[in-house]
This record gives sequence, structure tokens and C-alpha cells, in this order.
Amino acid sequence: MSNFDSSQHHHHQQCLEMNTPMELHQVVPPPYTSSLHKLKNRLKETFFPDDPFRQFKGKPPNTKFSLAIQYIFPIFQWGPNYSFQLFKSDIVSGLTIASLAIPQGISYAKLANLPPIIGLYSSFVPPLIYAVLGSSRDLAVGPVSIASLIMGSMLRQEVNPAKDPILFLQLALTSTFFAGLIQSSLGILRLGFIIDFLSKATLIGFMAGAAIIVSLQQLKSLLGITHFTKQMGLVPVLSSVFHETREWSWQTILMGVCFLVFLLLTRHISIKKPRVFWVSAGAPLVSVILATLIVFLVKAENHGISVIGKLPVGLNPLSWNMLRFNGSHLGLVMKTGLITGIISLTEGIAVGRTFAALKNYQVDGNKEMIAIGLMNIVGSCTSCYVTTGAFSRSAVNHNAGCKTAVSNIVMAITVMVTLMLLMPLFQYTPNVVLGAIIVTAVVGLIDIPAAYQIWKIDKFDFIVLLCAFLGVLFISVQGGLAIAVGISIFKVLLQITRPKTVMLGNIPRTDIYRSIHQYKDAVKVPGFLILSVEAPINFANTTYLKERILRWIEEYAEQEETKNECGLKFLLIDLSAVSAIDTSGVAFFTDLRLLLDKKGIQVSAEFRFLHRHFHTALYTSLVKNHISNPTLTKIQ
Amino acid sequence: MSNFDSSQHHHHQQCLEMNTPMELHQVVPPPYTSSLHKLKNRLKETFFPDDPFRQFKGKPPNTKFSLAIQYIFPIFQWGPNYSFQLFKSDIVSGLTIASLAIPQGISYAKLANLPPIIGLYSSFVPPLIYAVLGSSRDLAVGPVSIASLIMGSMLRQEVNPAKDPILFLQLALTSTFFAGLIQSSLGILRLGFIIDFLSKATLIGFMAGAAIIVSLQQLKSLLGITHFTKQMGLVPVLSSVFHETREWSWQTILMGVCFLVFLLLTRHISIKKPRVFWVSAGAPLVSVILATLIVFLVKAENHGISVIGKLPVGLNPLSWNMLRFNGSHLGLVMKTGLITGIISLTEGIAVGRTFAALKNYQVDGNKEMIAIGLMNIVGSCTSCYVTTGAFSRSAVNHNAGCKTAVSNIVMAITVMVTLMLLMPLFQYTPNVVLGAIIVTAVVGLIDIPAAYQIWKIDKFDFIVLLCAFLGVLFISVQGGLAIAVGISIFKVLLQITRPKTVMLGNIPRTDIYRSIHQYKDAVKVPGFLILSVEAPINFANTTYLKERILRWIEEYAEQEETKNECGLKFLLIDLSAVSAIDTSGVAFFTDLRLLLDKKGIQVSAEFRFLHRHFHTALYTSLVKNHISNPTLTKIQ
Repeated sequence: MSNFDSSQHHHHQQCLEMNTPMELHQVVPPPYTSSLHKLKNRLKETFFPDDPFRQFKGKPPNTKFSLAIQYIFPIFQWGPNYSFQLFKSDIVSGLTIASLAIPQGISYAKLANLPPIIGLYSSFVPPLIYAVLGSSRDLAVGPVSIASLIMGSMLRQEVNPAKDPILFLQLALTSTFFAGLIQSSLGILRLGFIIDFLSKATLIGFMAGAAIIVSLQQLKSLLGITHFTKQMGLVPVLSSVFHETREWSWQTILMGVCFLVFLLLTRHISIKKPRVFWVSAGAPLVSVILATLIVFLVKAENHGISVIGKLPVGLNPLSWNMLRFNGSHLGLVMKTGLITGIISLTEGIAVGRTFAALKNYQVDGNKEMIAIGLMNIVGSCTSCYVTTGAFSRSAVNHNAGCKTAVSNIVMAITVMVTLMLLMPLFQYTPNVVLGAIIVTAVVGLIDIPAAYQIWKIDKFDFIVLLCAFLGVLFISVQGGLAIAVGISIFKVLLQITRPKTVMLGNIPRTDIYRSIHQYKDAVKVPGFLILSVEAPINFANTTYLKERILRWIEEYAEQEETKNECGLKFLLIDLSAVSAIDTSGVAFFTDLRLLLDKKGIQVSAEFRFLHRHFHTALYTSLVKNHISNPTLTKIQ
Repeated sequence: MSNFDSSQHHHHQQCLEMNTPMELHQVVPPPYTSSLHKLKNRLKETFFPDDPFRQFKGKPPNTKFSLAIQYIFPIFQWGPNYSFQLFKSDIVSGLTIASLAIPQGISYAKLANLPPIIGLYSSFVPPLIYAVLGSSRDLAVGPVSIASLIMGSMLRQEVNPAKDPILFLQLALTSTFFAGLIQSSLGILRLGFIIDFLSKATLIGFMAGAAIIVSLQQLKSLLGITHFTKQMGLVPVLSSVFHETREWSWQTILMGVCFLVFLLLTRHISIKKPRVFWVSAGAPLVSVILATLIVFLVKAENHGISVIGKLPVGLNPLSWNMLRFNGSHLGLVMKTGLITGIISLTEGIAVGRTFAALKNYQVDGNKEMIAIGLMNIVGSCTSCYVTTGAFSRSAVNHNAGCKTAVSNIVMAITVMVTLMLLMPLFQYTPNVVLGAIIVTAVVGLIDIPAAYQIWKIDKFDFIVLLCAFLGVLFISVQGGLAIAVGISIFKVLLQITRPKTVMLGNIPRTDIYRSIHQYKDAVKVPGFLILSVEAPINFANTTYLKERILRWIEEYAEQEETKNECGLKFLLIDLSAVSAIDTSGVAFFTDLRLLLDKKGIQVSAEFRFLHRHFHTALYTSLVKNHISNPTLTKIQ
């Protein structure tokens, strides 16, 4: 079973030489390593796969210190080389994302049932923190739609934001604190791989479902309904909408449709021509200004169009005294923090990695988690709710030519100016235009081509996607996510519990052995049954493997009768795809040998897997049980 | 990377022939199969790996019917050939296990805080049901220590057996009903593989812990303490025992020590010489008779030795009216049923498989589950609590030369006679001798050599064992089990999340590529980095793999600088140990190629894995992305 078998014709000379017995290549046991050493290696591969401290090795203490400072605060890495040229790019992109961040910040805060001003606060402090700690150059930090949706819907289970807005805000800030704590802990404990369990299929399904849920919530503003359901599901929202048709306000609907068409059109233009990214980037701010002007001029607030109302002027008030670590809602707050924390982390890391790959630089996942986590902890003390790197704004940031995290600083300063001077202007901004902005932003989360691609490549992954999508729509946002993650893990476990076993045959005139079902020219070797096992052999599959191998043997015996072939003498098990064997696996080989000894069949396990990092004890144990002899791994 | 590379020197002639380009062996895409067909195959391998209906294929309807009857009731398989010769063996073994079953039945019922008579009832009906439905010839059916312990300790959480014995009995019978329901459902739904998740290491640790907990509970009878703690843990029991030293009764202790020494001695003799199995098999009954006689003659019940007391005469009363499917304890009862059901199933199936392997016949796991499940459902309606195949008694049954399930019938009839005629004799049986019998029975569950073997072979498995052991001792019986199963599954997931990547080098003068770390003679090919990935590539590990591969490349670049080697031109990824790739895996290859294109490194994935059962869509998708060209899989 040569892996590079097509290269064999280049080795004529070598073949001739190796065919003398002297040149016989022996399979050797792995070199001895102590358990402690193995444990150390294992821990390193598990928690430090990127070996972040490699750069410190063999450096003088002085350099080590400055490297450490640069490691913790990446701003010192790029700061010294910062130039006016870079600043020119950053100021353009910073102003662009600010024009997007102000209307989106207000909108997303409303999505989370929070006062609109909290959305602006959250676009001021967190970007400044991230600029110092973060290692991505393209991330535009601020509130995002999905985390806002989840926080709003989870907290609403226990507290009514309309009746008790202060308590609701306190719980939101406390959840943000826990989200930050969890995010930075994951980074510090180097457990970042937990977010890997959200597969691409899960995320696509989840995002699409969440986008629809978010859009449905906007029907309240877009139709001008005042008595809206408190539930999030597809069915209750639609039934509520069509139950309250007499609350629909034609003025609101007219305004909503106009702005929605305008925003979707600009979005469409920017997708077609990425060079004119500013068309869609500027559209939300233009819409807000236009809508506010219209309302102000025609006094539309008296004709059934609801407006934001007065917003307080001034920067973020401190809020560490609003955090509630006791009381009856602690469990909910921690759960909300956990889920919003992991979801927003997933978005932030994925966005950072995407743009880092485009610009060919590295983003350290665990370091990013610490940066995002600290940003949320500080945020929770300065009246900000959960923030992360937003996908849509980061794309605009990238398209606008940002060079460093300075674009975030520019954005934060613009928001600061807005907070201090321009707040009275938002008094007449109608809610309907905010709804239209949210719908336009989340439409991009529905990725039908990617879903189709998954359907084409892997039907099982598509089922996972569908479960996440339908779960979010019909059960709940967290429920759909949990189901999809559960199914993904179940699939992985099933691959191990029911490993594939493939019968191999010889390709004539070669020493290559291939699957009989795939290669028509592969022929069986009389008297031999050659099986390839394709998963680690462990407690979860030894029973299955025993039953399956016995069935292979019985099937061989049946064919033997009908075809008059010679009896089965040898069972060869190809372990090249077996990456690990545990103690149950060792017992499996012993049992198998006892069982087949009685049938007069000789077992031999093919020991290619031994040139993996197997430990000596396992090797010795298998050889001692006469399951396999390293020199026995030949066919004739 | 020949798998059977040592066989290559036999193929001199073949090598010569295949080295002409005409003979180049091509990697071909897998044959097309429809999604439906693949789904069918997958379901078959998952739920019917043993293909139980194979025997029905192509048979006339008459034969099919009689085969079906034989399939459902294995008694019709061996019944027609039953002979007097077989019966002679069965009657000896049946009487032997009956002499063990009567004292153990009484003892185990007390362990579960149930009236002793329930233990005898449970040794009468279930063996008869099993004899008709079961397919093992060696299983001795009845109550077992661990399931009794778990049922007793779980139900005691909510109901006090001393204060409310009727309710406690009702809950025990209802739990038994649920246990039976779960067991037979697992069998019918062919989900038997769920018990495979209890690995050997978990079971050894769990059993040892449970044996110690059970033995500690016997200190009550062995020391004659009347006020004993209700808790099960090591610490509370020991502190209670040494707190109540004034309740210790020297008469009880003396009697206990004598019988304990006697029983352990006979057990030791029978272990040394399996031929005299009857020494340990008969010892419990002899002890009971002796102890009862002593108590009766010296009227020891008046001197501080507690006795069983009057037992009702007569066969099992019907108890289906005792099952409680409503009320506040339903949740506990279902949980107890689930845990005792799965634990007793694990014991029964493992015992059945062990002896079937010794005698070279087959036991169908799923069929056995249905048999054990139905036996418990019927049992719960006839005053029996949870039963299964007991390990110690089955070993005695096997040693005593049992041939078929008739030995269970003989045992049941003996118990029946006891129930109808001999119950008054047990009135004076002291509890202390029952305690000694239990301790002797559970001592065998502590398997130190097996634990040492696991320590030697696999340190991680030993940690699992230790967690199960310490968890049972210090947390709770169910808690220890849950922790050990959790860790086992975590280990499997970790193998996938952090797959090993191994750098391969060429063995000079061959076309074999082996791990550089294991084979000292393996040398790097200049300009090439050859990595072997050893797990399915999926959502759980693509991020890790990307980071790890980049680190390999950087390490190569560093060596290059120091050693003046030529630059890295090609990255070859050996996928021979990759058994599956999902959509995230496909995206990983595309990303990797984009990333390395910028570094001027050409990527090629080695396509041996394609001769696994891969589907065409995945193959096409990879080839389309230019990740790999089937004819590109050569080195020079």
C-alpha cells in the first residue's frame, strides 16, 4: 500500500537494491520516552499548538522584556513604525466605519431591548481598548446583531425590559461582565478550541435562522405596531403581526419600505462593485439624517411614526456599581454571559482570521480572546454591553483601506464627538429607519450559496445546518445552537463507534493493496482476508469491530463454498489508518486471536501504525500477545 | 509508504514490470453511489453490524417462520436436541448455583434495603424467563451486588426504607420496570452500542469502588451496629462506624470474623484449583446453615446478634398493582431505572460474551438486551427487583459444567421448593453471616492485576480508572460513573481536536517514508515537507491543523537558515490515516492553498484516502480547488 506509489517507477535502481534480504526495512518500536515527557508533549500540543513563546527562546533578558510587552500590547509592535501615510488610510476607513457604527449602534441596542444610547457608549470605549490589546488590523469593534439578539431574548425570559428597564440594564451589564470573564479565561487557559466545535455548517444555519428572527422582530418598527409579542419564534411573531393588523400605520410602512429599498439597493451596488463600498457604508447615516429631517419637518411624530426621543448628552457614565453578583437572576446572567460570550467570540475570531489570511498576517486566537474578553470586562464597567468584531463593519473597514487598529481609534473619537455634541439631533430619528438598517445588515448573514455548497459536498453536514436553522426558527436561539452542536459531536463519535472496515485486494503486478469496492482491478489473495480499519481502536468500537470482522470471515466462508476457493488461512488487519489504540483495543486483539485460533485462522496486524508516536508499552504488549510480529507483516 | 513494504523483496520481477510508465497505477475516484444508497449502508452498519437477518435470505416461507421462532425464542434452537446426558450436567450445575443463589439473593436484597424475601423471589421468576428468551448457555440469572447497591442508594435519597418500607418497595419495583423497559428498548432500537461507552478502565475502577462501598455497608451487620449512617461515602461511613464504638457487639464480631475467614479461605482454594469450584460454591450455604444452627441452639438472638426474622411462605405474589407511574417520585424512579438498567445490562452482556467466547458460540448483544429487559419487566410484576447475569455465579455455573439454560430452570425450581417449604428455617439466620457472604462476593470485583496492566499500557486510561474509583468512593456511585464516562469521551474528542501530525522522511534506497522521530535512518527530502495527519479532518480540528502546519513550515524555515538548506518548495500532506473529511475540511484545504501560494509553496495532498469509501462530490471539490491532482501524488 505505497502512499507515493506512482513514484515507484522513479526508483528502479532502488528497487533492485532493496530486494536483497540485507536491505529489508524493519519496523522498529518507537523510541522510549518517559510518561512525564509524553504528558508534557501532549499538554503542549493541546494548549500551545502555536508555540507562542518560541520567539523568546535564547534571547537576552532585555529583548525578552520588550518582546513580552509587544506580545501583551501589540500596539507597541506596529506603533513605532506608524507613519502619516498609514494614518491617511486609517482616518478614511475610521470615518467610514463611524458613519456605519452610529446608526447600527443605536439599532442593535434596541434589538437587545436596551436604551439606544448604550449602543453608542459601546462603540466608544471597547474600540479604544481593542486598539491597544488586539492583534487584528481590520477588526471594526462594536455591538453586533446576533449577540444583541441573544442577550435581549435570554434576559427577557425573567425580566420585562418595558416594566423594569433599570434592572434589565443591570442584568445586561452583568452578563457582559461574565461574557468578558469567560472570553478572557478561555484565552488565558488556552481553551480557545472550544469555539471550534461550532462547525461551519452549524454557523451558516444558525446565522440564517438568527437573521430571520432578527428581521421578524423589526416588523414591530417597520409596521408601526405598538403591542408586539414578547416571544421570538417564527410562529408567535407572525401570528401576532397578523392579529394586530389594525395597529399597522401606513405612514410608517411607507417610510419603512422606501428606506429599506434604498438601503438594499446601495448594498446590492456595493456587492457588485466592491470599489464603491462607500455607497453602502454611507447609506445608513444618510438614511438616518434624511428620515430625521423628514420627521422634523412634517412633524411626523404626531402622525403615528414613533421616534427615539431624547438621548442624554455626554460620555459613558461609569457603571461598575450597576453589576449585580447576587440575587435571583445570577444563574440567568451567567448563562447569558456564557452564550453571548462564546457566540461573539466566534464571530470576532472568525472575522479576524478571515482578514488576516487576506492580508497574510497572523492572528493568535487565544490572544484575541484575552483582548476581546478584557474589552468586555472594561466595557461592563463603563455602560457598554457585549461587543466584538463585527463582520459587516470589518469588511467595510477592510475595503476602505484601513492599515492598523488606528481606524478603531478614529471611529471611537467620532462617536465621542457625537456623544458630546450631536445627541439632540437624534431626538426625531424614527424607529422605522433603524428597523430598516437592521434588516439590511442581517440579510447578509443568510448565505445561500454556502449552504448549497455544503448540500453538494456532505449531506450530513447539511442536516446539521438545517437543524441549527429550524431549531433557531421554531425552538429558540440557544436551543437551535445546542441541537446543532450536539449533532455535530454525535457525528464525530459515530465515526469512532462505527469505524469503516474495508476489504483490500492486490493490484496485479504491483505490491499495492486497495479497496476491492473502489478498484475493479484489485483482486483477492486466495486464503487471505485483508481488512483495513479506519479509526482509532478504543473502548467505543472494540465490540463492533469484533462482530464486523466475524461477519467478514463468515462472508468469506460463504463465497468459498459457492466459488470453490481455498479456505481462509490468514487475517491481515491493516492499521495504517489507526492513529491510537487504548487498553480495550489491546484486549480486542488478544480476544480476536483466541477466537480465530479456534477457527484455524492466523491473525496478523499490519504494523505501519507503529511509526506513529506509539509508546513502547503498547507495542510490547501487542507483540507479547503474538498478535503481530514486526517481521511478520508480509504477505507471502 | 508501503504498508506491506517488507514484502517488497518478493516482488523483484513485479517492480521491474511496473516501472514502465504504462503500468503506472492510477488513483481513481470512488464509484458513484446515490445519497439514499449511502444512507442505507450507513444505517445498516450503525444499527445492524452483525446482519442478524442474513440467515433468512432466500429461504422458503415455512423455514423462515421456524427460523423466526428460533430467533425470538432460542430455547427452540437447542430444545429439540436436548438429551439426558446434557440434563445430567445441567442438574449438577443448577443445584450448585441454587446453593449460592439462595444466600446471595437474601443478602443482595438487604443491600438494596428491600425485604430479604424479594431476593428469593428475584431468583425464581427471572431465571425461568431468561431460559426461554436468552441465548447464553452459561449465564446464571438473579440479583447482583452492584445493581442492588445503586438501586438502594438512589432510592434512599428520597424515601426512608425503615420508615416507609411499602413505598420503598413500590419504587424499587417501578424502577425495575423502567430498567426492563430501557433495556429492551435499547435492544429493539439496536442502540446496544451505548453500553460500549463504559470502557474497560471505567468498569474496573467503578467495580473496585463499588465493592469497597458495598463492603463498608456490611460493617453494620459485621459489627452489630444498630444506628448506622444513611450515607454511602467512604468518609461518612467510617466516621459513623468509629463514632458508635459502644454499639459494637463482640459476639457479632466474633461470628463475623469466623465466617469471613472461612468464606475467604474457600474462595482462595477455588481460585487456586478451579477443579474444586464446589468448595467456594457450597460455602455460603454451609455458612448460613451453620450460623442458623448456632443461633438457634445458643439462642444467640438474645445476646445481641440480629437475625433475619420470619419470612413469608409461598411463591411470588403478583405485584403489577404496586407499580407507581404517577406521584412525586417518578423522576427519581426513571433515573434509577436508567442507571441500574444500563449497569446491570453491562454486567449481563459482558458475562454472556466472556463465556460464549470460551465455549466458541455467539451471543447477540441486542437480542440479549431484549431478553434481559423482558425478564425485568415480567419480574417487576411478580415481586422481583432488578436482575441480570451475575458474574460470580455464572463462573460457578460454567465451572460446574452447565450445558444449556436448563441449569437456570433447575435453580429456579430449587428456589421454588425453598420458598414453599423451607422459609421457616431462615428465621434464625443471623445478618452477620449475610454480611460476610456479600463481602466475599464483592472482593472478587477488585481486580488489581488488571488495573496494573492498564497502568503499564496506557496512563490516560489509568487516570480514567482512578477517577471512576475515587469518584465512587468520595462523591457517589452514579457520580463516579458519570465522571469516568465523561473523561473517556473527552479523550476521544481530544484525539480528534488535536490530531497528531508527524513529519516523514525517506528511508534511503527505498520508496518508503517514515516518521523522522521514530526512524533514525529516515532522511528529509530537501525542499519537501512531508506531513502525515492522523485523524479525520473536520470542524473540530481545521483551525488547529492550520496553525500546526504553519508552525512546521516556520520550523523548517529556521532550520533552513542555520543549516543552509534549500528553501521549502513543496508541502505534501499524507492523508493515509485520514478516514473522513467534512465541509470544514474542504474549506481547510482551500484556505491552506491560498495561504501557501503567497509563500510560494506548492501544496499537494496525498490521495491514498480516496480508496476509502469517499463520495464523488468531495473528491471533485478537492480536485477542482487544485489542492490535489490524482496524478500529482509523486515526489520527484
